[in-house]
Amino acid sequence: MNKLRINPTRMLDSFNQLASFGASSDGGVNRPSFSEAHLAARNWFQEEIKKSGFEFRTDGAGNHSAFLPASDSAESAKQSHTESEIASGQRAPLAMTKTLLFGSHLDSVPKGGRFDGALGVMAAFEVLKTVKENEIKLKLNLEAIDFSDEEGTHMSLLGSSALSGHINPDDMQKPYSGRENFLAGLARAGLSEKSLLTAKRPKESVAGYLELHIEQGKRLERAGINIGVVSAIVGYGSYHLSFIGRADHAGSASMEDRLDAGQGASAFILAARELVMRDFPNCVANVGKIEFAPGASNIVPARADLMLEFRSPDANQLSKLDDALIKLANEKATQFGLKLISEPLGKHTPNLMSAEIQKAFQDSCDILGLSNTTLASGAIHDAQSLVDVCPIGMIFVPSVDGASHAPREFTEWEDCVNGANVLLQTVMKLAAN
Amino acid sequence: MNKLRINPTRMLDSFNQLASFGASSDGGVNRPSFSEAHLAARNWFQEEIKKSGFEFRTDGAGNHSAFLPASDSAESAKQSHTESEIASGQRAPLAMTKTLLFGSHLDSVPKGGRFDGALGVMAAFEVLKTVKENEIKLKLNLEAIDFSDEEGTHMSLLGSSALSGHINPDDMQKPYSGRENFLAGLARAGLSEKSLLTAKRPKESVAGYLELHIEQGKRLERAGINIGVVSAIVGYGSYHLSFIGRADHAGSASMEDRLDAGQGASAFILAARELVMRDFPNCVANVGKIEFAPGASNIVPARADLMLEFRSPDANQLSKLDDALIKLANEKATQFGLKLISEPLGKHTPNLMSAEIQKAFQDSCDILGLSNTTLASGAIHDAQSLVDVCPIGMIFVPSVDGASHAPREFTEWEDCVNGANVLLQTVMKLAAN
Repeated sequence: MNKLRINPTRMLDSFNQLASFGASSDGGVNRPSFSEAHLAARNWFQEEIKKSGFEFRTDGAGNHSAFLPASDSAESAKQSHTESEIASGQRAPLAMTKTLLFGSHLDSVPKGGRFDGALGVMAAFEVLKTVKENEIKLKLNLEAIDFSDEEGTHMSLLGSSALSGHINPDDMQKPYSGRENFLAGLARAGLSEKSLLTAKRPKESVAGYLELHIEQGKRLERAGINIGVVSAIVGYGSYHLSFIGRADHAGSASMEDRLDAGQGASAFILAARELVMRDFPNCVANVGKIEFAPGASNIVPARADLMLEFRSPDANQLSKLDDALIKLANEKATQFGLKLISEPLGKHTPNLMSAEIQKAFQDSCDILGLSNTTLASGAIHDAQSLVDVCPIGMIFVPSVDGASHAPREFTEWEDCVNGANVLLQTVMKLAAN
Repeated sequence: MNKLRINPTRMLDSFNQLASFGASSDGGVNRPSFSEAHLAARNWFQEEIKKSGFEFRTDGAGNHSAFLPASDSAESAKQSHTESEIASGQRAPLAMTKTLLFGSHLDSVPKGGRFDGALGVMAAFEVLKTVKENEIKLKLNLEAIDFSDEEGTHMSLLGSSALSGHINPDDMQKPYSGRENFLAGLARAGLSEKSLLTAKRPKESVAGYLELHIEQGKRLERAGINIGVVSAIVGYGSYHLSFIGRADHAGSASMEDRLDAGQGASAFILAARELVMRDFPNCVANVGKIEFAPGASNIVPARADLMLEFRSPDANQLSKLDDALIKLANEKATQFGLKLISEPLGKHTPNLMSAEIQKAFQDSCDILGLSNTTLASGAIHDAQSLVDVCPIGMIFVPSVDGASHAPREFTEWEDCVNGANVLLQTVMKLAAN
């Protein structure tokens, strides 16, 4: 088994076919969830699964899988006990054969790249093909999965959250895309709010979840390392901050007399960066959106609204960073005579990867002669949805220039192949026992 | 004549009637140019002019006036020479009786206040009524005028620019409101692009232009002074500045690796204020509008676009301030590894008020026992359109808390009456000689 490798040419062919759905002229893809291009890519994947002789599986969240049952005959036999046989008492309920999930997502951000998500699904599919054609005997069912709406066109991590039982009816009231677009998107994919709630899987059915993804940062490239073994997905906090001043005529109000909301917001944006770089070296913060009101060139801004987010791999540190940033925003508001309104938007604690799976990834790297390092994921990923369902693990491959969520996103094909082989070795190791 | 005063109650009644057009529940008015509320206010003013026994005049720019001919019978006689009589050689062309214009505008910014512009027109109308009912003999025609679109819903200072002959067909291609809204607005007022070009008056017909306006700043209120005699309308420059960085994933890109356009823009906004306060004490600068692109909370801003404007009462200083601000923007871009694109949007030099009219205003204050000071206007006004047509002059009355372009804009009625009486005394002095 140690010598088994995926077929790089076959994986590249699949990867390129997939990249044609929603392809943009600049080499990227525009494949937001449940858009025409995304639905076409999903249909293509479904056909490819069937063509390759796998069982196609789907659920109420529109997650699509290629399924390969465990090869152990005793395990397979257990599956033949039908639910009605068990319910009727003709057969005692036997231990279910667990499934090892691995995959990623086919949707992209608007005007995104070809690798984010797509590489993980195509590598998972290629691993499954390699296991099947080599008739590897494994004790777990294998399932290469494409999760719905990872990028949050409607709801971040939609498919993986649904599978993990983390969605409730309230969550669906405020999708990012608005209710109407959300419901229309679900309908286009043959789904509904009700169906989403049926996608939950019993914990005892899932053995683990593995994901290969591009790093979306520069750490591996800069260090010249082949594989990043993810230790944690960073925790996250976000706020809507409003600095409130006073609108004045920008010609007639003297500089001294102004309560310029833009000054407080600008001072905060600068100081937040300095704070993070000085006191929170493993963390990040971003202000990606800002608006001044009333928003005329000749009126002093009465209000500056901005979106702040920040991330840390450590729960304690995340909480300290949260406090420090809000304290800083209040200080900067006060400095310019402004009021601050801070509205928390979202928060989640860091999610730790399974130590056992991290070790398995490292062993696979050793088998393959690939250098590796441990790092935290700054981005969210479907893996974190499953953290309370099963052991989870992720690996990263280098992103050229750290580019992500943009058409220029790129990973050398050799690195993609390395990642897929690490996934193959790790799947075989975990499923063999 | 020194003892003549306007009728405060009559002026207040007119002022309140006018404030009912476009009145908002918070005490302001919403009367953008050629909106339904603005057109209704214009119609009301036209009717009031006729009811009060004045000749109503209008032109191709929709400027509305109450006209009171010079009372000197010799002068009046000259007017009876018809153009056809002159053209046919029956009469030699006699010197035209000049007209002293005074007024302001009836339009408001969106969600503006009751005083900006409206006070100047109502005071001018009241002055005309006072002169007429007291049968004051004057050598100049008097004309109380409401200029179209001072606030620039479509084009700033539209009516006064048209009257001064400063509009050409090219200027009308890029109105603030867009071509479609501009043409529709003109049509609603019975105007057209073509008619605007007919509003130009011969220089020899205009003796001068006077305007009473609220200060829109805190200088008079703070100093406890009744009347501000305006020495100049400040010069103005504006730019569209774009700081160009790179979009990165806000979770996975380290703080060190980012080219965050928002940092450069924020640093510039802060530093521009410091620069002006330190090195340009009589000047102002403002960033009233900003946008980050792509504008998502989890993406590092690739681009920050902002609108910068700055003003100075001195032409040389304005030029130095312009250079210093653009140099500063380039420095801040460089500091954060960004590129800067600066696009000049508009520019005009400071406009000086007539020394003779300033003196006349000061003398009127002395007659009325009102304290006064000389100051520059930070805001633009219709007066500046006429600077190369005739001598111009302006006075300000105190704005409570400096509020302007907002519903809370307020001036004590006593101050409004003081301003109207200074206008009355000055009109009589200038028109008597």
